[in-house]
Amino acid sequence: MMIEQRKKLTVITEAALESTLGPVLLEQGASGYTVTNARGHGSHGARDGGWSSSSNIRIEIICDYPVAQAIAEHLLENYAKNYAMILYLSNVDIFRPERF
Amino acid sequence: MMIEQRKKLTVITEAALESTLGPVLLEQGASGYTVTNARGHGSHGARDGGWSSSSNIRIEIICDYPVAQAIAEHLLENYAKNYAMILYLSNVDIFRPERF
Amino acid sequence: MMIEQRKKLTVITEAALESTLGPVLLEQGASGYTVTNARGHGSHGARDGGWSSSSNIRIEIICDYPVAQAIAEHLLENYAKNYAMILYLSNVDIFRPERF
Repeated sequence: MMIEQRKKLTVITEAALESTLGPVLLEQGASGYTVTNARGHGSHGARDGGWSSSSNIRIEIICDYPVAQAIAEHLLENYAKNYAMILYLSNVDIFRPERF
Repeated sequence: MMIEQRKKLTVITEAALESTLGPVLLEQGASGYTVTNARGHGSHGARDGGWSSSSNIRIEIICDYPVAQAIAEHLLENYAKNYAMILYLSNVDIFRPERF
Repeated sequence: MMIEQRKKLTVITEAALESTLGPVLLEQGASGYTVTNARGHGSHGARDGGWSSSSNIRIEIICDYPVAQAIAEHLLENYAKNYAMILYLSNVDIFRPERF
């Protein structure tokens, strides 16, 4: 079975951004993404600068490094000032790499 | 504290498959698995071949490499033609390795 | 863009523990954490020792290695005997490392 390494970009942000970010991710080169509901706790809130417990979403995008970087740069430049946002990359080995 | 490396196999697929796949995963050697609800967006749908937004689940199995490979092969052979399905592996360092 | 490696500690445990563990994680050095609902299946239940399907949560903490280790040790010592609990570490490359 063919396996290839890709990047997984995870974006944890405010639930209110879901419909806004979807088209943005595709424009920046994602072939798809997966969203799960989450609850955030801690000092990650950019908006209030303090401790918070909030309705968040986790968005995960499997892509190559340049696409991950383009998405991350775009989100940080355009949304991170006004919305709580955590972004990180990890390595994944995907099956059926021709799909990504 | 003892830590050992294992594989985490992630399967993102259609929610309708949850009850079918559970017994399959255990038969293929998984000692357990965790399911979360998710929403998929993009061109991953095998069924319609186009853009879709659908009710998905994310299944995660912590196991060794041979079990991960057996599960992935079984799922790809038996379900990937008729259901949207993304599979990928990542490395995790688990605590209490005797449990897996 | 600045990227730095951190650890992601994942704790999969019983939903009933959520409100108890929150303050514990912060006391042990976490700057925040993300919770998602999950369903666990398998032989992971410490309480009944057998197969179970149960209402779980997945807690994820982005932190450095010493904090991850402190949290894991604390949870294993204080909760793992009475609650089903899976803990594992993975590597993530975070954007905006000054936040963690």
